[in-house]
Amino acid sequence: MTQLILDISMSLDGYVAGPNQTLEEPLGAGGMDLHEWVIKLAAWRERHGLEGGEHGPDSDLVAEGIAATGAVVMGRRMFSGGSGPWEDDPNADGWWGDDPPFRAPVFVLTHHPRETVEKQRGTSFTFVTDGIESALEQARAAAGGKAVSLGGGADVARQYLAAGLLDELRIHVVPVLLGGGVRLFDGVGPQQLEVTRVLESSGVTHLRYSPIRDR
Amino acid sequence: MTQLILDISMSLDGYVAGPNQTLEEPLGAGGMDLHEWVIKLAAWRERHGLEGGEHGPDSDLVAEGIAATGAVVMGRRMFSGGSGPWEDDPNADGWWGDDPPFRAPVFVLTHHPRETVEKQRGTSFTFVTDGIESALEQARAAAGGKAVSLGGGADVARQYLAAGLLDELRIHVVPVLLGGGVRLFDGVGPQQLEVTRVLESSGVTHLRYSPIRDR
Repeated sequence: MTQLILDISMSLDGYVAGPNQTLEEPLGAGGMDLHEWVIKLAAWRERHGLEGGEHGPDSDLVAEGIAATGAVVMGRRMFSGGSGPWEDDPNADGWWGDDPPFRAPVFVLTHHPRETVEKQRGTSFTFVTDGIESALEQARAAAGGKAVSLGGGADVARQYLAAGLLDELRIHVVPVLLGGGVRLFDGVGPQQLEVTRVLESSGVTHLRYSPIRDR
Repeated sequence: MTQLILDISMSLDGYVAGPNQTLEEPLGAGGMDLHEWVIKLAAWRERHGLEGGEHGPDSDLVAEGIAATGAVVMGRRMFSGGSGPWEDDPNADGWWGDDPPFRAPVFVLTHHPRETVEKQRGTSFTFVTDGIESALEQARAAAGGKAVSLGGGADVARQYLAAGLLDELRIHVVPVLLGGGVRLFDGVGPQQLEVTRVLESSGVTHLRYSPIRDR
């Protein structure tokens, strides 16, 4: 069975975006602190058309995740760029440009029907209006036996978790307290988890969990 | 300088106690899930007058923490037993019995002046009414060069963190989502941290951080 994997960076105090999201700071105050560890990695930079970057266990981990991903599910705000006034424009083209880093079919959860958008190097954005199960089903069919990756936002992650559809949570715990913003876990649970892997690296701790489904 | 160390178990969703704290469940629904890992350990059981228990890295970690502790600071609710109606009785004798596991001077933050209570094997409870800095100062003086341990509650931990008085956070991340309750970090931050140690064990991940004080 094709796995659905949540892969997300979280502050130690549980936030995946900071407070006061604006056009200038779509990730909120301090929100970029959550991603600094990844944007300096060679594997991430290659995918984003950038040169250089650090090699090592962190980059290997990211490369491994990229290689194992066959399709992506995301929320509308993650497609269109943070939350803010522009998210109300159902035709906004997103912030991913012509050559998005996914290089795989992406399924965007939205309430606004729209034609699939084809981008370069295998990325496509398909807009799913009939719910998380439909998006997952379509992503699984498109994943060619690889995993389906769920990057966010938090609301979408919570919906899949609450529905018992997540197979693995890969949480990159960033050593920072944001003090406010968007919490990954809010009103989800109770839920027993099983630790499947821990990788310590330069600052960020990579934790993997599987939900225990004995309910 | 005598270090102030926060040592606390937290769910992956950031709670140190579950929702709906009652007399029967002073740690709230699911709150005991946060402590199951420690109460089965030999080092913890010995301190609590219980036989048996598991040996291994977890128990060694707990034993190491115990050996390095010279004094303890805690909040009033942690002294008197969770939160609930009984916490309004300023003379409540706490839930620690005649032979508390601390075997060291304990400084209880409270608004109710009260005589120091001497217990067996070196535990004493001194009630501090003039604030967190005074409690820390008294604990440091009593610690005999060892560390001062802060176990909770969350409100006291947050006060020390916000005041820049915490030297280390030792957070035992328990693989469970409680879905509600008392959050360790709530309205504290922003704060950059440095990872000082990661220990993976059977389920629980032991993370240690130091606040970065470049502000």
